[in-house]
Amino acid sequence: MMARVLFRPEGKTVEVATGTPLSDAIVQAGSGLNLPCGGQGRCGRCRVVVESGPVERRGSSRLSPLELEQGYALACQTTVQGDLQVFIPPQEAILRHLPSEKAAGEVPTLPVECDWRSSPIVQQFFLTIEPPSLSDNTTDFERLKRELAKQYGVKDVVVSLPMMRRVARTLRQSEAQLSKAWEVTAVLEMGTWEDEDAPPRLIDLRPGDHTARTLAIAVDIGTTSNVVYLIDLASGQFVDSAAAYSAQISCGEDVIARILYARKEGGLEHLQRLVVGTINELLQELAKRNGIDLSEVYAATVAGNTTMIHLFLALDPGYIRLEPYIPTVTFPLPVRAAELGIHICPEASVDCLPGVGAYVGGDITAGVLSSGMFKTDKLTLFIDVGTNGEIVLGNSDWLISCACSAGPAFEGAGVRSGMRATVGAIEEVWISAGTYEPTYHVIGDVPPRGICGSGMISLLAEMFITGVMDKSGHLNRALNTPRIRVGEHGPEYVVAWAAETSSRDEDIVLTEVDISNLIRAKGAIYAGFSVLTNSVGIDLADVEEVLIGGGFGKYIDIEKAIQIGLMPDMPWERFRYLGNTSVLGAFTALLCRDMRREVTEIARKMTYLELSADNRFMEQFTSALFLPHTDTAAFPSVMRLLARRGQEPS
Amino acid sequence: MMARVLFRPEGKTVEVATGTPLSDAIVQAGSGLNLPCGGQGRCGRCRVVVESGPVERRGSSRLSPLELEQGYALACQTTVQGDLQVFIPPQEAILRHLPSEKAAGEVPTLPVECDWRSSPIVQQFFLTIEPPSLSDNTTDFERLKRELAKQYGVKDVVVSLPMMRRVARTLRQSEAQLSKAWEVTAVLEMGTWEDEDAPPRLIDLRPGDHTARTLAIAVDIGTTSNVVYLIDLASGQFVDSAAAYSAQISCGEDVIARILYARKEGGLEHLQRLVVGTINELLQELAKRNGIDLSEVYAATVAGNTTMIHLFLALDPGYIRLEPYIPTVTFPLPVRAAELGIHICPEASVDCLPGVGAYVGGDITAGVLSSGMFKTDKLTLFIDVGTNGEIVLGNSDWLISCACSAGPAFEGAGVRSGMRATVGAIEEVWISAGTYEPTYHVIGDVPPRGICGSGMISLLAEMFITGVMDKSGHLNRALNTPRIRVGEHGPEYVVAWAAETSSRDEDIVLTEVDISNLIRAKGAIYAGFSVLTNSVGIDLADVEEVLIGGGFGKYIDIEKAIQIGLMPDMPWERFRYLGNTSVLGAFTALLCRDMRREVTEIARKMTYLELSADNRFMEQFTSALFLPHTDTAAFPSVMRLLARRGQEPS
Repeated sequence: MMARVLFRPEGKTVEVATGTPLSDAIVQAGSGLNLPCGGQGRCGRCRVVVESGPVERRGSSRLSPLELEQGYALACQTTVQGDLQVFIPPQEAILRHLPSEKAAGEVPTLPVECDWRSSPIVQQFFLTIEPPSLSDNTTDFERLKRELAKQYGVKDVVVSLPMMRRVARTLRQSEAQLSKAWEVTAVLEMGTWEDEDAPPRLIDLRPGDHTARTLAIAVDIGTTSNVVYLIDLASGQFVDSAAAYSAQISCGEDVIARILYARKEGGLEHLQRLVVGTINELLQELAKRNGIDLSEVYAATVAGNTTMIHLFLALDPGYIRLEPYIPTVTFPLPVRAAELGIHICPEASVDCLPGVGAYVGGDITAGVLSSGMFKTDKLTLFIDVGTNGEIVLGNSDWLISCACSAGPAFEGAGVRSGMRATVGAIEEVWISAGTYEPTYHVIGDVPPRGICGSGMISLLAEMFITGVMDKSGHLNRALNTPRIRVGEHGPEYVVAWAAETSSRDEDIVLTEVDISNLIRAKGAIYAGFSVLTNSVGIDLADVEEVLIGGGFGKYIDIEKAIQIGLMPDMPWERFRYLGNTSVLGAFTALLCRDMRREVTEIARKMTYLELSADNRFMEQFTSALFLPHTDTAAFPSVMRLLARRGQEPS
Repeated sequence: MMARVLFRPEGKTVEVATGTPLSDAIVQAGSGLNLPCGGQGRCGRCRVVVESGPVERRGSSRLSPLELEQGYALACQTTVQGDLQVFIPPQEAILRHLPSEKAAGEVPTLPVECDWRSSPIVQQFFLTIEPPSLSDNTTDFERLKRELAKQYGVKDVVVSLPMMRRVARTLRQSEAQLSKAWEVTAVLEMGTWEDEDAPPRLIDLRPGDHTARTLAIAVDIGTTSNVVYLIDLASGQFVDSAAAYSAQISCGEDVIARILYARKEGGLEHLQRLVVGTINELLQELAKRNGIDLSEVYAATVAGNTTMIHLFLALDPGYIRLEPYIPTVTFPLPVRAAELGIHICPEASVDCLPGVGAYVGGDITAGVLSSGMFKTDKLTLFIDVGTNGEIVLGNSDWLISCACSAGPAFEGAGVRSGMRATVGAIEEVWISAGTYEPTYHVIGDVPPRGICGSGMISLLAEMFITGVMDKSGHLNRALNTPRIRVGEHGPEYVVAWAAETSSRDEDIVLTEVDISNLIRAKGAIYAGFSVLTNSVGIDLADVEEVLIGGGFGKYIDIEKAIQIGLMPDMPWERFRYLGNTSVLGAFTALLCRDMRREVTEIARKMTYLELSADNRFMEQFTSALFLPHTDTAAFPSVMRLLARRGQEPS
């Protein structure tokens, strides 16, 4: 039996079989829909209003009785049972483009010193070639090879079949008007990541001289957002960048949700197309803005976590999720752009930075590379808090890493009023110690829509320091303020009244459930620090430098992060923000062959500590489920502050 | 304007735009049609009868007035101008399958001694692998590599992306029931033709032990026919073979016609699909007969002339035809079966044997390899008469080659009653010296349909020796026999009366025009012998051995070939037939790495003499346009025979 579903406000109608999940019908209608948990009914983000018609609800645990009464349903947990009219609330529309001013404004330079000029990965050679004659009837390809050897000493050039098919015609198209000589630019890939001594490979041949610039891209494939840097290998210069939220977000907000989505029929291929689609959109944007032909982009390096790289290459990620958590591969394998559908030179090599294991991927080795910690004597802690929290401890002699399943709470998922760090997000909060009234700052200076990660850290710290909540995360309902109340979802603190918000009909709140999720997230990360330092017999306080990478790290307030016990309590000058270390690492490895070797070496030598198999982690995690921590001695500055405020934690 | 064309006797109807060539309409109808000259209107083989409706004829030089009157038209030179009814004569139907008894009956062995066991191109390794655990969480691919290194000493294995995508699942599918260990067969390509030291490449991975046999194929891509040998690399044994006429024949009978066809929009891709289609059909036949799964065929070597290899790889062959005759490439480049659409293991390497130039290709180096002439001290002449005549002179020290555009006369084209060596072909003729009446032998012992190459050599020799024609190829019309007459196409000799033939309505004749074409063909080949020997200062009579390769050579009568001056006049014991040396060479190079090196060396060291630029060739060709030759001293045995018969040539 078929049923017709009309979607408002867009007005589109689709026909589906009865029994079809409403979420599938929405995808069929081409409407964007967030499925942060991959359609498992856990996150409650795919809320829609069934305005009329019969549906069957499989689960609604994420909905309040009021919402159920208002006709709300979780699209992924609801099946179509007849003709329907469904309203998709605008706040669930998918965010696609990151504010371009953030990306375009920065001009990164190589973070690590290296001799990138010594041997670029791709080189262009301009050739003037005498055309063949009866007395010199060498084949086209041998003639090209002969001239490359004679004019530039480049020998044993190899070529793929699709490239070879263009050789004869291109050479003849390149005939100079006067001299009749052939004048072409040969683009050669000089060795591969796997095999530096691999013979030079002809990846493009074009009439005329095009040696002035040699374009290439560095890509960060994050779980949440993708970034592309356009680089000129000939000058070593950064040219431009573009960033966007990953189109994969519609299939799950964290890697586990994506892995579950990949298990569906055609799911893996769909995810692969989505990530490549996002990259291609960014490439289009860069091409338009810089007036370039994308077929002139001759190399790509890609950094991403192990799951995202599996999805990018359409490798089965299923075993990453299951004990003992085994990826198919963590070291790059030779892949051509055409194999993946990336719209650059089809022969361009696409090299993924090597990872360490299932949960410490190429984004982290990229971070270690671009942070320079692999060459320092100082005992350094590197942390990348994104959708996951990955931590690396070490220096030029040794490196040890772990991953904490912090969950995406700091990215806005699993928190009722959570959202990403974009326009409308509360990014900083101050609470008055006397009145418990908050003041906040919103990205874009507009009425608030929700709270982003840095806002949540700031809010938690303020609530704790002012005594709005206790060290266990319970709200102090004895305080005389209307901000603390028991709402539909239990006790909560009101950050913004409905009238102040952009929607004007719902208060922005932080519930005790949200607080508990956030404390678990910060506890996991701190437990990671503890286990990692303990495992090598070091005290966390001995760490000389803390480097914070990842998009998240850029905006957090260290003072507040220490107050809630997310970061270790040490002098602020030991902390350093590095920005998007993943794309910076990809950029570094793209430009410099030595750095390619370094990051391979980093991946090889880094020890990986699997926390899920470690009892010490569970102990440390439990100890960290308090604010700032059970071990108050480890947080002297926070203790002093509380003492000053008369908020001695009991 | 659209028009409907009904084809008889098949009864199919197609709709085409007016102005469409009738040949295109026939192709659209899916009916087979020979276009031996590639649709240039030169060969006259695409004759059809326009039974009703309007057409426009662009040319009809190949049709007699009688044929025109009967409604005959050349399909390639006729355009549809309205609704038509067209009859396709059955004799023009395309021959597809070679009589399988010829191919299946032979069990070839390696023609040249070599140590094929020392290092096969593809090797299979059976592995028992401990599955991963939390304490041994190496990635799947690294685990596989580790075990290959540990159990077999095979290191640095590489893999393509499509292969990598199958690794995780295959390993887990291979779990043994009792031990729970993974048990798989890894199929590795050990180096490439281009780079023997290339790292081993994983081309297949299968649960269980499959090391008992390692299948591979050797392929001959002839202009006229294709042959596939199925080989077991593990035992070095020939398994089976299959042969068929090339489906490309419908697009042109010789290489020049194919090159012209390739210039058409989509022509090159169409030709590529046709040759791959023929090979795939032969593979199907072999798979069925031997109960094998074609995905277990792990390597292919291919021999063919330079144009056929260009068409096989879809490389533009256009510049091979134009002075100075430049191929894109003559040395193999790495190609995977999937890239070409050959239905074997998609990762199997398909290696084309190296050629020397535009008109001396890999079929000839294969011939030199399989003939063993590259290791002999004897001065040897190798000749492969197929659609072209290629000649190699030399020994273990040096090799020189040339190609004579003999044309396809000996293959039946350009000769009115000519046909290929298949059932119904007159393959041998004897003429009575007194009555000038012929006796003949027909392949398959059926009423004759035409004359094949060996039949024409035999017929020419008998006509010459008995005085039916003179040394210039003119018929002696003074002889008292009804066999010699002036027909529609000029003077002709009747080999079989219509009543004896299979069609029962047309005499089988040899016209003076046919004779002239045949004399030009034999003259070109003999001129090649002369120029080649002269160019190195050797007398043709000094040649110690004459090796005859190619499908054609197998059936000719040396005595008769000498009588018409096609072969040099020397003792018969110096001649040796080698059969299809092209596929034998491919077989040799497939099985033995040393031989792969040898044939590369052969291609590198062989000198190529371009005859089109050589005045000596024109001189020698002119001298050879007589029977047996202007230089009668070079044919003492023929002269003695003529003297005995009282047929001293004037």
